[in-house]
Amino acid sequence: MNFASDTTAPAHPDVLAAVLAANAGAAPSYGADDWTARAQQALSTLFETDLAVAFVSSGTAANALALSLLCPPDGAIICHENAHINRDERGAPEFYTHGGKLFLLSGAHDLIGSDALQVALKTMDRDFVHETPADVLSLSQLSEAGTAYSQKEVKALCALAHNAGLRTHMDGARLANALVHTKCSPADMTWRAGVDVLSFGFSKNGALGAEAIILFGEQSKAFAALEARRKRGGHMPPKQRFVSAQVLAMLQDNLWLSLARHANAAAQMLADGFERSGACLQHPVQGNEVFVCLQDGQAKALREAGVQFYAWPDGSARFVTSWNTPQVDVQNALATLS
Amino acid sequence: MNFASDTTAPAHPDVLAAVLAANAGAAPSYGADDWTARAQQALSTLFETDLAVAFVSSGTAANALALSLLCPPDGAIICHENAHINRDERGAPEFYTHGGKLFLLSGAHDLIGSDALQVALKTMDRDFVHETPADVLSLSQLSEAGTAYSQKEVKALCALAHNAGLRTHMDGARLANALVHTKCSPADMTWRAGVDVLSFGFSKNGALGAEAIILFGEQSKAFAALEARRKRGGHMPPKQRFVSAQVLAMLQDNLWLSLARHANAAAQMLADGFERSGACLQHPVQGNEVFVCLQDGQAKALREAGVQFYAWPDGSARFVTSWNTPQVDVQNALATLS
Amino acid sequence: MNFASDTTAPAHPDVLAAVLAANAGAAPSYGADDWTARAQQALSTLFETDLAVAFVSSGTAANALALSLLCPPDGAIICHENAHINRDERGAPEFYTHGGKLFLLSGAHDLIGSDALQVALKTMDRDFVHETPADVLSLSQLSEAGTAYSQKEVKALCALAHNAGLRTHMDGARLANALVHTKCSPADMTWRAGVDVLSFGFSKNGALGAEAIILFGEQSKAFAALEARRKRGGHMPPKQRFVSAQVLAMLQDNLWLSLARHANAAAQMLADGFERSGACLQHPVQGNEVFVCLQDGQAKALREAGVQFYAWPDGSARFVTSWNTPQVDVQNALATLS
Amino acid sequence: MNFASDTTAPAHPDVLAAVLAANAGAAPSYGADDWTARAQQALSTLFETDLAVAFVSSGTAANALALSLLCPPDGAIICHENAHINRDERGAPEFYTHGGKLFLLSGAHDLIGSDALQVALKTMDRDFVHETPADVLSLSQLSEAGTAYSQKEVKALCALAHNAGLRTHMDGARLANALVHTKCSPADMTWRAGVDVLSFGFSKNGALGAEAIILFGEQSKAFAALEARRKRGGHMPPKQRFVSAQVLAMLQDNLWLSLARHANAAAQMLADGFERSGACLQHPVQGNEVFVCLQDGQAKALREAGVQFYAWPDGSARFVTSWNTPQVDVQNALATLS
Repeated sequence: MNFASDTTAPAHPDVLAAVLAANAGAAPSYGADDWTARAQQALSTLFETDLAVAFVSSGTAANALALSLLCPPDGAIICHENAHINRDERGAPEFYTHGGKLFLLSGAHDLIGSDALQVALKTMDRDFVHETPADVLSLSQLSEAGTAYSQKEVKALCALAHNAGLRTHMDGARLANALVHTKCSPADMTWRAGVDVLSFGFSKNGALGAEAIILFGEQSKAFAALEARRKRGGHMPPKQRFVSAQVLAMLQDNLWLSLARHANAAAQMLADGFERSGACLQHPVQGNEVFVCLQDGQAKALREAGVQFYAWPDGSARFVTSWNTPQVDVQNALATLS
Repeated sequence: MNFASDTTAPAHPDVLAAVLAANAGAAPSYGADDWTARAQQALSTLFETDLAVAFVSSGTAANALALSLLCPPDGAIICHENAHINRDERGAPEFYTHGGKLFLLSGAHDLIGSDALQVALKTMDRDFVHETPADVLSLSQLSEAGTAYSQKEVKALCALAHNAGLRTHMDGARLANALVHTKCSPADMTWRAGVDVLSFGFSKNGALGAEAIILFGEQSKAFAALEARRKRGGHMPPKQRFVSAQVLAMLQDNLWLSLARHANAAAQMLADGFERSGACLQHPVQGNEVFVCLQDGQAKALREAGVQFYAWPDGSARFVTSWNTPQVDVQNALATLS
Repeated sequence: MNFASDTTAPAHPDVLAAVLAANAGAAPSYGADDWTARAQQALSTLFETDLAVAFVSSGTAANALALSLLCPPDGAIICHENAHINRDERGAPEFYTHGGKLFLLSGAHDLIGSDALQVALKTMDRDFVHETPADVLSLSQLSEAGTAYSQKEVKALCALAHNAGLRTHMDGARLANALVHTKCSPADMTWRAGVDVLSFGFSKNGALGAEAIILFGEQSKAFAALEARRKRGGHMPPKQRFVSAQVLAMLQDNLWLSLARHANAAAQMLADGFERSGACLQHPVQGNEVFVCLQDGQAKALREAGVQFYAWPDGSARFVTSWNTPQVDVQNALATLS
Repeated sequence: MNFASDTTAPAHPDVLAAVLAANAGAAPSYGADDWTARAQQALSTLFETDLAVAFVSSGTAANALALSLLCPPDGAIICHENAHINRDERGAPEFYTHGGKLFLLSGAHDLIGSDALQVALKTMDRDFVHETPADVLSLSQLSEAGTAYSQKEVKALCALAHNAGLRTHMDGARLANALVHTKCSPADMTWRAGVDVLSFGFSKNGALGAEAIILFGEQSKAFAALEARRKRGGHMPPKQRFVSAQVLAMLQDNLWLSLARHANAAAQMLADGFERSGACLQHPVQGNEVFVCLQDGQAKALREAGVQFYAWPDGSARFVTSWNTPQVDVQNALATLS
């Protein structure tokens, strides 16, 4: 019963089948192959707009490369203090931006509120050379607390950012889960809501290792710069077809949404069971993560039954479900609490 | 008939089978999995010594991360002017070292000679603060001209470097091909010859995308630093087992050497044919690359027959064979010249 | 009546006289001159210990170079959220450390409390590769609120830092003012209290432009690295004697302390007058800065009388006195409030 | 008899007098003072055009900051292999550009020839993502060999660079000496010849420590970016009036040209004497530096007579004259050879 992380899950069989199918004969290297062209086309269809895209194999790479396009070395990125880009990427954004700063906002359930953003933007003086101005707003969808911004919230935050001269980035490592929860379309949650650049994750949702950096609208002009940074960062693998093929498989018949739907449902079932057992949820469950304050003895009982999960720094316990979490695992885990 | 690059080749079926086999159930992420531990053990056995290793998915990442451990921001790396790290990585070493310099040496057939290295080391004044001292010697095995250093040459160059206070790196993107040619063991060509850190490539030799950064001896103390840099660079994929499994498959029963042997033999057959046709070789053929000065009309004939190859900046034509080059492709290509 | 900043003050005549005196004949460049050797010796005497020192011409350079010795690119610096290194140096620490992070602590009067530091150090997991560990504690003496740490506080904070494996830096741009206030010796407030590296400022206290980066004890081994970084940063001026001569003049007969004593007294007089006028102090006055919440109409009256000061982001007004603030200016400024 | 370097010379009395005169009362800090405004105006008059300018205190800072405006982290700078920016700045350009590369050209007397530049530009493929393209041409005037480009040569080289999409930088640490030799006006030698950004040096020519970074024409739009980088680099001293006042003094009545004229004449006298003595010049003498291949015994005789000079890596001896080299020193030095 593994609820440690969705990164511990294997890949979906369709993804592996696609990699196998791509393993036929010679193909141009470094992204000039057909799979890459088709994956770009499929993403364009999915997002209902023209876009530029580059594929990499880790979410940290996707975020850091995306941010490096938007934030100069002497600029800054506004994000939540618990954002993955701040807490869990060992300074990758600082590395790729050559020393850009992260301006940290607090906010309940790891979500940035409009008020907090407004205050931050207002106190900023872009003409005062001693102070680092913010150039980017980065939103995590899902947040690190497993919560989702509504489309309306994303729109409001992006509008504030744009009005203040910033550009916007969405860390969509778990975008699939957020879209399933909010019943919002990819286009509505991203570029139509004001997102300029998106890190779109597949690795946690069933791929072997595949993430897309998507440049919407005007931002697509930066594609050549992105390619240069990707090469320079060592993120342009010679046999790129094997990454692109994964994305194609995930998009095929909306597999990515089906997988996220499964994971979200498992999380909801887990959360409901926790609440019935008297434990209380630390955050609303809006994706595939459950943060719960266990009652005395519950943690021990779970661990003894072989349930894997993380003790979170805030004192809660984190359970992550994934595309292949068996329903019976959820039931068995909950059974230990009754 | 694709002789454009070994990076255009597919992966060997055994590699894919290993990835499939690894796709079973949950596994710890970020390198704490069994496949990674076993791959490390297999490399230790292969190199007949204790070592530390980290796996990444591109050769550029392997080189740049390796060099960043050896060269401080205000230091320098000595390499051949045509080295991949200088010409073909879009400044990745400079990025990962935070601005280290490359000191370029010339030398026939893209190999560094002892004399040239000695002169370079002699003119360096480590105590003169205005000048950047060299901290690393980086050797490419195969070189960009497809040539191989002998074990004796590597030993002599590394000794010179060590005596001058430098550490040594080998870019072994095509190490397999060099070992097949020189009939030298992995241990003898690397740490026993004085190599401190090795980038050991599998991608060009039949993997989907897998490279090992190997820290020999004392250098293994830098493993924690390497892991931090790997995470920071976005090169610590969550599902690392799928990279490590490729390495295991390649090492199984010395598959990697068999594949390189095939590629080298194809290159030799091609080279022999070119010479019979009156074309002359630009460099000795010591691996899976043939650089040849074609006669009038030969390039056209080859292209018209559907043979793919690169026109090289020095005026020659580059043909690269790979682990799956069919013998008949070589024969057919040569047939167009007779 | 200029209370805008101590950086608007001219230089003390003795400093200029020393520069003039140094302008005699040829002298070795880049720090090999006698003035530099004598300034180092004078600092060693002042701090009652062996030390290594490098001179630069701005406080930002001193801080950023000092921090770059202590914090690797994938490390972090703990400081107060309002520290100069965070708010007013346009990311210089991030630039010189190649992307190190600043971990921000809050605390009354811009001072870090032991409790806050303890919590921060406790939640840090140096073995968790995803997270950036802290490597440095940086204390500002005076703080940005014009307050001073006591020797006991510095000692306690440095001990906590050292126990957790960090090294310590003091931003002493206004160290003179803090020492005058605390009646503490330079040695007691710095290395004897656990400070490893000190930025010792003279520019705000009467120099033309001179700051010292002082490496105490073990840290002095990093002197060659500091020199390399100084050269690389463009902070090794050819005619360095003219910087060192300023430091010599400032140290002569403890001129630096006399000047700080004057500035502190002027600030105290101003603060006392403000309080009598009914305005209330935002922070204790422990150096040459007064932060005051003016009553209705007071700001206007002051401005109309030609008094220059800054409206501070927190709503208070900042008045800075300097080595040459005339007593009559203080009296005249206060007279407008009665 | 000091011919070691022009950086060992003291400052001209007029420069010191100007600093003294500037030391009157309070003045806005960080460049908002009158002296800075007037120095900018004076430079605009001198160069007969609108321009933006920032003042720093070392030539390395001027070059590195200038280049950082023109060369992105994944770009490159073409320069002579012996250029100061390559050999003597400890990687400052790489630091300030965040890892930009230097592409080194050779050329007689440390001057870049049009042919060499043309070849370099031709082999560059801006669309090949693996390769670093050149973004900047940097010319040193004087070169490290003490030679000067003619206005015609600068024009031709800049035209080639501009046609290939590069921008141009001139390292004018000894521009004064070059202008005296070529009898060319500042405007003709710089922006009218195609120079986009100029490092204009005063430190070697009689200032305490003052260099100007000048942005011509379109480039002046980057002034805000330059200010941010200057602050971030620690090169925005609080009391900037003392740097600007030096520049004003140097420009007053063309003092800078008179001083360079003196230094050049001394060098010529020295060179003539060397030739008469049978020694032969390594490079034409076109400024204030003489590189000479001394005859057997001459070096020893000079050293014994107390003449200071440098043994240059190429085997020659370097003698540098300065604004205050006494004629009698030249005569006495030469007397030892007869």
